[in-house]
Amino acid sequence: MKELVIRTGKEKEVLDITHEVEQAVAEQGVKEGICHLFLLHTTAALTTSDLDTGTDLDILDALEHIVPNLNYRHPHNPRHAKYHIMATMIGPSISVPLEEGKLQLGPWQRIVLLEFGGPRERSIILHCSP
Amino acid sequence: MKELVIRTGKEKEVLDITHEVEQAVAEQGVKEGICHLFLLHTTAALTTSDLDTGTDLDILDALEHIVPNLNYRHPHNPRHAKYHIMATMIGPSISVPLEEGKLQLGPWQRIVLLEFGGPRERSIILHCSP
Amino acid sequence: MKELVIRTGKEKEVLDITHEVEQAVAEQGVKEGICHLFLLHTTAALTTSDLDTGTDLDILDALEHIVPNLNYRHPHNPRHAKYHIMATMIGPSISVPLEEGKLQLGPWQRIVLLEFGGPRERSIILHCSP
Repeated sequence: MKELVIRTGKEKEVLDITHEVEQAVAEQGVKEGICHLFLLHTTAALTTSDLDTGTDLDILDALEHIVPNLNYRHPHNPRHAKYHIMATMIGPSISVPLEEGKLQLGPWQRIVLLEFGGPRERSIILHCSP
Repeated sequence: MKELVIRTGKEKEVLDITHEVEQAVAEQGVKEGICHLFLLHTTAALTTSDLDTGTDLDILDALEHIVPNLNYRHPHNPRHAKYHIMATMIGPSISVPLEEGKLQLGPWQRIVLLEFGGPRERSIILHCSP
Repeated sequence: MKELVIRTGKEKEVLDITHEVEQAVAEQGVKEGICHLFLLHTTAALTTSDLDTGTDLDILDALEHIVPNLNYRHPHNPRHAKYHIMATMIGPSISVPLEEGKLQLGPWQRIVLLEFGGPRERSIILHCSP
């Protein structure tokens, strides 16, 4: 079990964290099995995505349109309600197969952290099981 | 492997089930690994969320706006189509890390059952793997 | 670890792949545990759903409305941005419990591949862990 700490740089961004995950997997020594990733936050999310040029901003623009601007009840900041809803829709965890110690991803598939309320330090628990 | 049964109380609600999951995990005896949760339904969903006051209703209001009212083909009840779409968007499963027998969650992160077609009894299969 | 290859037949469709997954699980020989499924693509997604008559088309119609038609930056084809966003929202992986060698699913719950950019061959990595 390892905690990956990712420093995000903007209020909202899609960060490619595939390389950081690959490095952490190599340290774990599991060659064949599943790499479980779990994000310890409620205004960010974890998934996989294509990252063709501009796709990161396309995803963020679409989510901004998809989640409506309602009169949210959130006590501190109504924008936080939108962040929580985006995070809940995308989800906090993914489980990626490992073979010969390598993440099995499609040719255009990257592991991404979606930041909705940054810049912040974000923690991801990584556990590889055989 | 254990089946958690959760009784929901309304047609739509966001239920914090973290405590029920913690109790079931303690019975399993796995100290370090992953707690897999899988919901056996198609008009409810499983995820994690912040539960600041009002966030539960904010999430439900947003989903009601996000999923449009179309002329759905659903044979019994067109509202069920909306429930199925919400459930499909959020998803039926999450995998949460365990350390020293405790769920590793962020400080504001709760395990939540989203009920879209209640009140009902909802079954969740829990399996902890090392 | 096994690679399931699914041939989709349309540009967009919801395919019930439960039977193909059941067959692959039977070959793996794991009786009790978790069946992890991971899709190696960025214009398709994996989840569970009800498949009452018409629900497949209801889901696709809803997603087409939910993801807005913006001036996406995607370099090859702006429609691909919509596919990527749908795939990112639904997600690439699910983890289904196994008991006595059988997938534990709800009575109306099916494992589905959502195709957004077909017809294509789609690869899913399947790994059963005890």
